[in-house]
Amino acid sequence: MTQTGQHPSVGIIMGSKSDLPIMEDAIKILKELGVNTEVSIVSAHRTPERMFDYAKNAASRGLKVIIAGAGGAAHLPGMVASITHLPVIGVPVKSSNSIDGWDSILSILQMPNGIPVATVALNAAKNAGLLAAQILATADEQLAQNVLNFKQELKIKIEETAAEVEKMTF
Amino acid sequence: MTQTGQHPSVGIIMGSKSDLPIMEDAIKILKELGVNTEVSIVSAHRTPERMFDYAKNAASRGLKVIIAGAGGAAHLPGMVASITHLPVIGVPVKSSNSIDGWDSILSILQMPNGIPVATVALNAAKNAGLLAAQILATADEQLAQNVLNFKQELKIKIEETAAEVEKMTF
Amino acid sequence: MTQTGQHPSVGIIMGSKSDLPIMEDAIKILKELGVNTEVSIVSAHRTPERMFDYAKNAASRGLKVIIAGAGGAAHLPGMVASITHLPVIGVPVKSSNSIDGWDSILSILQMPNGIPVATVALNAAKNAGLLAAQILATADEQLAQNVLNFKQELKIKIEETAAEVEKMTF
Amino acid sequence: MTQTGQHPSVGIIMGSKSDLPIMEDAIKILKELGVNTEVSIVSAHRTPERMFDYAKNAASRGLKVIIAGAGGAAHLPGMVASITHLPVIGVPVKSSNSIDGWDSILSILQMPNGIPVATVALNAAKNAGLLAAQILATADEQLAQNVLNFKQELKIKIEETAAEVEKMTF
Amino acid sequence: MTQTGQHPSVGIIMGSKSDLPIMEDAIKILKELGVNTEVSIVSAHRTPERMFDYAKNAASRGLKVIIAGAGGAAHLPGMVASITHLPVIGVPVKSSNSIDGWDSILSILQMPNGIPVATVALNAAKNAGLLAAQILATADEQLAQNVLNFKQELKIKIEETAAEVEKMTF
Amino acid sequence: MTQTGQHPSVGIIMGSKSDLPIMEDAIKILKELGVNTEVSIVSAHRTPERMFDYAKNAASRGLKVIIAGAGGAAHLPGMVASITHLPVIGVPVKSSNSIDGWDSILSILQMPNGIPVATVALNAAKNAGLLAAQILATADEQLAQNVLNFKQELKIKIEETAAEVEKMTF
Amino acid sequence: MTQTGQHPSVGIIMGSKSDLPIMEDAIKILKELGVNTEVSIVSAHRTPERMFDYAKNAASRGLKVIIAGAGGAAHLPGMVASITHLPVIGVPVKSSNSIDGWDSILSILQMPNGIPVATVALNAAKNAGLLAAQILATADEQLAQNVLNFKQELKIKIEETAAEVEKMTF
Amino acid sequence: MTQTGQHPSVGIIMGSKSDLPIMEDAIKILKELGVNTEVSIVSAHRTPERMFDYAKNAASRGLKVIIAGAGGAAHLPGMVASITHLPVIGVPVKSSNSIDGWDSILSILQMPNGIPVATVALNAAKNAGLLAAQILATADEQLAQNVLNFKQELKIKIEETAAEVEKMTF
Repeated sequence: MTQTGQHPSVGIIMGSKSDLPIMEDAIKILKELGVNTEVSIVSAHRTPERMFDYAKNAASRGLKVIIAGAGGAAHLPGMVASITHLPVIGVPVKSSNSIDGWDSILSILQMPNGIPVATVALNAAKNAGLLAAQILATADEQLAQNVLNFKQELKIKIEETAAEVEKMTF
Repeated sequence: MTQTGQHPSVGIIMGSKSDLPIMEDAIKILKELGVNTEVSIVSAHRTPERMFDYAKNAASRGLKVIIAGAGGAAHLPGMVASITHLPVIGVPVKSSNSIDGWDSILSILQMPNGIPVATVALNAAKNAGLLAAQILATADEQLAQNVLNFKQELKIKIEETAAEVEKMTF
Repeated sequence: MTQTGQHPSVGIIMGSKSDLPIMEDAIKILKELGVNTEVSIVSAHRTPERMFDYAKNAASRGLKVIIAGAGGAAHLPGMVASITHLPVIGVPVKSSNSIDGWDSILSILQMPNGIPVATVALNAAKNAGLLAAQILATADEQLAQNVLNFKQELKIKIEETAAEVEKMTF
Repeated sequence: MTQTGQHPSVGIIMGSKSDLPIMEDAIKILKELGVNTEVSIVSAHRTPERMFDYAKNAASRGLKVIIAGAGGAAHLPGMVASITHLPVIGVPVKSSNSIDGWDSILSILQMPNGIPVATVALNAAKNAGLLAAQILATADEQLAQNVLNFKQELKIKIEETAAEVEKMTF
Repeated sequence: MTQTGQHPSVGIIMGSKSDLPIMEDAIKILKELGVNTEVSIVSAHRTPERMFDYAKNAASRGLKVIIAGAGGAAHLPGMVASITHLPVIGVPVKSSNSIDGWDSILSILQMPNGIPVATVALNAAKNAGLLAAQILATADEQLAQNVLNFKQELKIKIEETAAEVEKMTF
Repeated sequence: MTQTGQHPSVGIIMGSKSDLPIMEDAIKILKELGVNTEVSIVSAHRTPERMFDYAKNAASRGLKVIIAGAGGAAHLPGMVASITHLPVIGVPVKSSNSIDGWDSILSILQMPNGIPVATVALNAAKNAGLLAAQILATADEQLAQNVLNFKQELKIKIEETAAEVEKMTF
Repeated sequence: MTQTGQHPSVGIIMGSKSDLPIMEDAIKILKELGVNTEVSIVSAHRTPERMFDYAKNAASRGLKVIIAGAGGAAHLPGMVASITHLPVIGVPVKSSNSIDGWDSILSILQMPNGIPVATVALNAAKNAGLLAAQILATADEQLAQNVLNFKQELKIKIEETAAEVEKMTF
Repeated sequence: MTQTGQHPSVGIIMGSKSDLPIMEDAIKILKELGVNTEVSIVSAHRTPERMFDYAKNAASRGLKVIIAGAGGAAHLPGMVASITHLPVIGVPVKSSNSIDGWDSILSILQMPNGIPVATVALNAAKNAGLLAAQILATADEQLAQNVLNFKQELKIKIEETAAEVEKMTF
């Protein structure tokens, strides 16, 4: 069964609206793959109670996977993961207050034993969306097929570009 | 339904047997949570065809999630992810040929758009196992309960330690 | 008025008992300077609710300053700072799961605008204790004098060592 | 008692006038919170005697907290901290001669035992101002209330943005 | 014998057409030195089978050296090297998804024992081309002479610039 | 024709005898593959003239490839490459005066346009030897076969270990 | 005796004319302080013999100090220092082929025991010029006075700026 | 004229007696080269006035060059350089409170325009001593000869080791 119903299965949150241009890639690819999402702003540092409530209620509200993007001392993905038992995907954002992204990456990736965050590459919200789809696809054959189709398209695009480059003269 | 059957749902692979002491943490926690695993050595660089076959056949053999550990120029997780549509969890191993783990982390984490690897902390095979369980638990209520119980135990252990420390005199 | 009463004015917390050998330096220097402390284990990731309650009630329980030590993806100081309005001093701990301390430093230091953490050097719990004393001393002349005396002793020790080294032959 | 009198309680210094656009954020937030400040240029390297005098006389002139911003081999915060017993807050500035800010951070943060500098994030002068206010607020209930109000406003802004984003369609 | 025949002896591949502006430097210098090349797009992650076939057949198709450029988690050079026995030259590309090039460098350079990649500097496709020529020149005296001539020209250009600068007044 | 004659085709040099335990891996693998080598100590910094002569005469003495190992500010590989037109393979050595190997890697790898050094992983002298063999094998079919056999053995060893691990119980 | 004669006492060299805009700062400050200089382009990698001759003859031509600027794998300062016994000042240049300057710094700074290079900050050619003047001033009282005057002017400029900033209202 | 008189021309200082095992290398090489030294402990942070007096009086006491070693946030070399006009050589010490030496290096090297510190490699006190001798030798022919002899001995040692290694069989 593909996620065609009304209820979102992936919650996408970020610490600041300024992260939205990056995080939109996750929304788009999930839409493309047929997965319903809900999007909000949840700041671990400016709205800790809101963050707490969001994580606490995520599973009972029907979410299956959470994607959290944050930059600098990026605590949102790890804190949400500490409160919910759902898989949390962290997107390190190279925000304006980040030191080339190193702080974003390390404060999301280096979680202690017991509280994993599935970290993707710097700014790689598209991959976060794909990973969420792959996770849901472990129990959804249609979605698995959609992911396979997506991968097939990637391959075809490269082959077309290759054919084009092979004809170029240098 | 918990994974109590014979068939493993998580494949755990690593590039070298020397990674086994680290990767065993994934095997143990999954066993503890009631998830069947299979373990093998698959080297992207020394056995590329074996790696190719492993990834190609993983889904049809019944695996739902793959955990891949590697160090240095760690290509195993990313290459497996390029071939299968299953979610792949990457464990950067601080192996003897690694530069303090930075090479292991960056070559697993920084995957291009289209091919995510769910990266966990350096040497954090236990978290890779937990994440695999959380992924499977999105469609397995008993397993979700087991993860919740595990988190509850973590909490109780800290509270016990806290009580102990609060009684200490300095 | 020096903090000679029963009530602790500095709360010292850490994410794990394994941080205690480092964090004890804060307890000792504060004791030496006549500041009462209380010590506990509070894990942002394993006991998020406990962390929440600790931070929420710190001011009303009479604490004036909080010292929080953590390693790896070290969220404790920043999360406590997000909940309380008391000054929070963060001690990046080079714990076993840390990448040479870089993750500990960056995830404590690089807090977003609005939520500062007063970060000290890697493993520098003694300096965290001193800083807490300097903060309290802004409204406590006796404690200010104690800090001045401490600095005077540091100076005398160096001068004694200098005299000793100047007499050495090489 | 809020700092409504004429006398500044926070001294804000920086090594070069080129740091002023960054350091102004500290001045502004302290003004907003009702704390009087004084601002000057003090270079540890170009005016070492001036720096010495500034630090030596800071407490007797009535200052309670010093905020010092510097970039590159940033010695100003640490040297001032070595001379005064007041709490010193260091702002690592990503100045033009800095290597992505790493030199600024490490030469402010990594102070030896005995001489703490309360370091905030790269360029985070606003947080330095907030931290100074939090320090003064340990003995000033009105100021504590102002800090609480500031945090409350941060929260409301995020909640408003969240409401706005939740209504967007992607 | 210089490579004047029809058959290319150097294969130049890259993971994405966006790498072409960098990789063209390899094509140009080899052309200049009289070495035939072929150019294509081969993505380890998006076309793993194509990559596999390319590497498997490279030697039998007459290629002597392979130059592979890639950025981020750059697996192409190492994976090709794992499949072919030809020398593989890796060009770390500072692509848009790279963290200042560190990921590109480390994931190409830090290959495990048994599978070397001859790594050149970040974006240094020209040097990759030169190195390929030097490799072929070990069995091609005319090409060796061409390389020597190229080095001689470099020297003359510097000497001309030196003469020019020595006449400047400052 | 395999390099079975008396004359060495690969020159292996290093800046200090303390690098020999690392560099021996290059000598051994080349011996194993049937390639004659000569070994010496040549320091760019302590014997610049010797280095100059070595590089100048390498080709005329019959060498085809040079392997140079050095640590810290490692100038030997690059300086030799600036003087000879032979391919130079650089081995960054993590010597006692090196900062975790970063200086060794960067000062070998980051050569300017016109003067490539084929850099291998930190301490990876074995891979330097293999790469030298692969280079010579571009014009030596027997040696190419030897390299293929070596790769085949690597594969078999992994398959044996895999079989062993698959039988283990955890 | 100030260096008022015809003969230059400081040789300023750089690996490429593109380094001239940076290195001019050294020429200017030395001119300002009354020290004669000569300027040229000497590339360790493209003109190794020229570099060798330059360093070999520097002392006999009357030079007292050499300033060498270079970027990337910056071997020029260290190689010149290996050949001459004159003090060599190295300027790490953040050239276009440098990784944020780290390669330039490490390959100049991390020289082995026996061959020092007096390294200054990234791009800090002005400081290289000043250091050369300070070195010559150890045997030239007039030049020492010129350096003192320069430092006095730095101080006055800061004091003027400070007076200006202290009058500003924020 | 060699420095054979009673008066020391090189002052060697360090922030802590724990730096002495490293800094002794400077004392020894200068003694070997016939340069008189004086040694003391001067802490920028614990004895700022002592540091100030030391730097202020260094020239009038007859010192020509100062060598200063320090670790962590290493302010001693830069602060001394800000006060004296003598050349200051900085030795970054990898002390126990240092992050792999990066903080020591950056806080000594990255001095602002106007205040150079001649920085040598991490822990390279021997090179600091040699550099001091090279500086004094710009006005002391006998000392210049001593430095040349030292370099000649380095060369001979390498040649002897080379001869030894060339006879080894592998």
